[in-house]
Amino acid sequence: MFETAELGAKTSREEFDAAAGPLRLELLALQEKLREADFPVLVLFAGVDGAGKSESVNLISEWLDPHWIVTRAYENPSQEEAERPSFWRYWRDLPKKGQLGLFLSGWYSRPVLDRVYRRSDMAEFDRRLDHNKAFERLLADDGALILKFWMHLDKKSQKKRLKAFEADPLQCWRVKKGDWKNWRRYDKFIEAAEHAIRRTDFSHARWTIVDGGDHRHRGLTVLRHLRDALAQHLARPKPRRHKPAKPKPLRTTVLGTLDLSQKLGEKDYVTALREARAELAVLAREAHGRGISSVALFEGWDAAGKGGAIRRVTAGLDARHWQVIPVAAPSDEEKAHHYLWRFWRHLPRAGHMLIYDRSWYGRVLVERVEAFARQEEWQRAYAEINNFEDQLLHHGMVLAKFWLHISSEEQYRRFELRDSVAYKKWKLTEEDWRNRAKWDAYEAAVHEMVERTSSAAAPWTLIEGNDKNFARIKIIRTLCDRYRHRLAQP
Amino acid sequence: MFETAELGAKTSREEFDAAAGPLRLELLALQEKLREADFPVLVLFAGVDGAGKSESVNLISEWLDPHWIVTRAYENPSQEEAERPSFWRYWRDLPKKGQLGLFLSGWYSRPVLDRVYRRSDMAEFDRRLDHNKAFERLLADDGALILKFWMHLDKKSQKKRLKAFEADPLQCWRVKKGDWKNWRRYDKFIEAAEHAIRRTDFSHARWTIVDGGDHRHRGLTVLRHLRDALAQHLARPKPRRHKPAKPKPLRTTVLGTLDLSQKLGEKDYVTALREARAELAVLAREAHGRGISSVALFEGWDAAGKGGAIRRVTAGLDARHWQVIPVAAPSDEEKAHHYLWRFWRHLPRAGHMLIYDRSWYGRVLVERVEAFARQEEWQRAYAEINNFEDQLLHHGMVLAKFWLHISSEEQYRRFELRDSVAYKKWKLTEEDWRNRAKWDAYEAAVHEMVERTSSAAAPWTLIEGNDKNFARIKIIRTLCDRYRHRLAQP
Repeated sequence: MFETAELGAKTSREEFDAAAGPLRLELLALQEKLREADFPVLVLFAGVDGAGKSESVNLISEWLDPHWIVTRAYENPSQEEAERPSFWRYWRDLPKKGQLGLFLSGWYSRPVLDRVYRRSDMAEFDRRLDHNKAFERLLADDGALILKFWMHLDKKSQKKRLKAFEADPLQCWRVKKGDWKNWRRYDKFIEAAEHAIRRTDFSHARWTIVDGGDHRHRGLTVLRHLRDALAQHLARPKPRRHKPAKPKPLRTTVLGTLDLSQKLGEKDYVTALREARAELAVLAREAHGRGISSVALFEGWDAAGKGGAIRRVTAGLDARHWQVIPVAAPSDEEKAHHYLWRFWRHLPRAGHMLIYDRSWYGRVLVERVEAFARQEEWQRAYAEINNFEDQLLHHGMVLAKFWLHISSEEQYRRFELRDSVAYKKWKLTEEDWRNRAKWDAYEAAVHEMVERTSSAAAPWTLIEGNDKNFARIKIIRTLCDRYRHRLAQP
Repeated sequence: MFETAELGAKTSREEFDAAAGPLRLELLALQEKLREADFPVLVLFAGVDGAGKSESVNLISEWLDPHWIVTRAYENPSQEEAERPSFWRYWRDLPKKGQLGLFLSGWYSRPVLDRVYRRSDMAEFDRRLDHNKAFERLLADDGALILKFWMHLDKKSQKKRLKAFEADPLQCWRVKKGDWKNWRRYDKFIEAAEHAIRRTDFSHARWTIVDGGDHRHRGLTVLRHLRDALAQHLARPKPRRHKPAKPKPLRTTVLGTLDLSQKLGEKDYVTALREARAELAVLAREAHGRGISSVALFEGWDAAGKGGAIRRVTAGLDARHWQVIPVAAPSDEEKAHHYLWRFWRHLPRAGHMLIYDRSWYGRVLVERVEAFARQEEWQRAYAEINNFEDQLLHHGMVLAKFWLHISSEEQYRRFELRDSVAYKKWKLTEEDWRNRAKWDAYEAAVHEMVERTSSAAAPWTLIEGNDKNFARIKIIRTLCDRYRHRLAQP
């Protein structure tokens, strides 16, 4: 694989200077177009130490307008980073649409090194590479241009390069603790790299192998690739928006099977609430002590009682350990990112509970029904969401997903009530009436959502909500179950 | 001070129910107005454990629309929080304009408890209270409504309350490790609280002392206060925008004293750059190892060479340890906060270096000259900025501030050059020419900025920039000095 990068290609100063001027102009013109475009560019540098990764980053920053470039390089995760799924920090640092993100020691660095030092076996290595694939796939699907450069040097050249750095007071810091240790494992490193590249090389996130021997040759190679890829990506046709197919009315849906007549009398409710909340408080405290965090999300019909249910859950918990994130219209920073970005950014610290009042499922509910998302966008969202939740679960989080169901008649009754009770009026908007008119379309969307995203590990709990007492108790008890299930594991 | 809160005031259920309905309506109407207003509301709850702080938060969340409420409660700082000045986490959590922020165990909690347990002496206690004052002052000046509630219970009642909590399985978690320990120090606690309240009670951030004995009485007290204060704040007249006074041309400015003829020949430059960078790399590495972080900011005339200078600084440093933040137009999230918020959010982790390409000084430069900020806004900004930088220094950070100066003729020459060299053309905009026309106004603003914000601990370094070589070397050497100075301290 790396033979092509060991041919000793060289570029003379004259050649470089002759090429640099026009190339730089082209890149600047492309960057200006990029600023207006609706996608970000991610450029990832990996490879042999000393083969010119950070020099390439410097060259790009020098040639282009640095105001639209974000550079990130990673060390061992900080405590706050370690308390979240491993991709959290990469999500945080993603460039906005119109920006260029340059990544050093990014999401390939640790999987490869852990394999080189045999801290992970092949199965674990592949699992992590699959996460990288899914991450890049999801960004590319959203429009991102992803370029991955493997900067190469053969073993002898690397030794020479490291020695030269060490002898130079200006460069000696480049040789880090561990670089020589890595060098002695050169063959293992190359073997792991080859495996990683082969497994993660796709047309939407291609690897480019660069001969790192000559700095002029290497610089031109990287920048020409960037130019070509960017020009091509900018010229790609806009995805067409199809008129959404009229959803077929479903005769039977998962919601139709719910027994909405279930009720809980006031007296039973008060006793049950007391007991269930006490239990939840104990479980949440144990989870906090063990550093287990949890995510609960609430979806449901307008007026189904999400807000009230959430308050019943939190009222008995220590306010320092939970937060509610109401999901409304995205801010402009959020709009400039992948739709999952705004949910990643809030993920809770170890031992904390986060409640999303509406969630990422908006993508397959309101965005689908109102055609804010294109068909292929909401259709691929199921897999994206499943992958996201897998990462939460793999990190050891508790995950609970509630759909609050009420009948269409009950919703009507509550709308009327809201309209007549002064202090409830604010809860009712024009939009609620509009959504109500699309009940069937929403019901079909909910049905498919449950079908595609409810699994043994991340089940949907459908709540019979016509009786608020019944609903609230079922929610708190379900949360207790999810906690208990998790706490029984190490 | 607390006698008034020990009179045993009570509200019957009937009185409460009669008052609740209309009060709730008023609050909802006010919240709706608030959403359109250009200020946030901060409500801070402090006081005796068991006196109803979190119950008050719950009541507000229940009565109002929770989508516009942010609740935050604090524990011991996390590692990432501890790596920044202590107010960093409060800045991160500030509500946006139009929102209501509810704070539990906020910025009074630790100063008071540290004093109670004699972990800090009176001087340190007062110093921290002064920080609280400055924080609230700055937010209030920016328009924020700040309410502070001290929830009170006498010693006997607190004992009864804690015992009652412990006996109740639903409430027992409320009695935390340390609550009984605190109770035994009740008198010291009250003494410290009294001192804190007296020292931080101002018309723009008033304390309200609430008798926490009866939950209905306490709830109505808090919510009525919130209603009255909010109504008053919404009705306050808009600040008038005066036509900015024409700045008097200054005969002598600090910039006028710089010797712009200083030069460094190419050969000397190459040697000096090599040496200075090597030294900086060594110092930065030592700082990283010791967890000392640093902030460098660059201001200067258009085309003065900020970007080039920054690249010369960073090119020799480990990319994992620095970041450049280009300061452009604020995002809508940033616009919804105090102007310093966007700078607080980026503050570096321990051992990291952050470079601001333009900075918070925009407030007293472009915002002043272009009249984006009102006169009283930019005039008070000097004190706000000095306080902000004091916090960085007090946290042990390295701080370097550069003004890159060039003569008006040199700027003209560079503009022309940019216009004629294809790959530099992007650097020149219409705005640059417009700014140039206001040279005198900017020079007066720079003069006053240096006068008011340059101190022994946080000096401005004025860079003679007509010769780029000379400027770059002076910048790197100054950075080295600032590092050396800091590293000589423990």
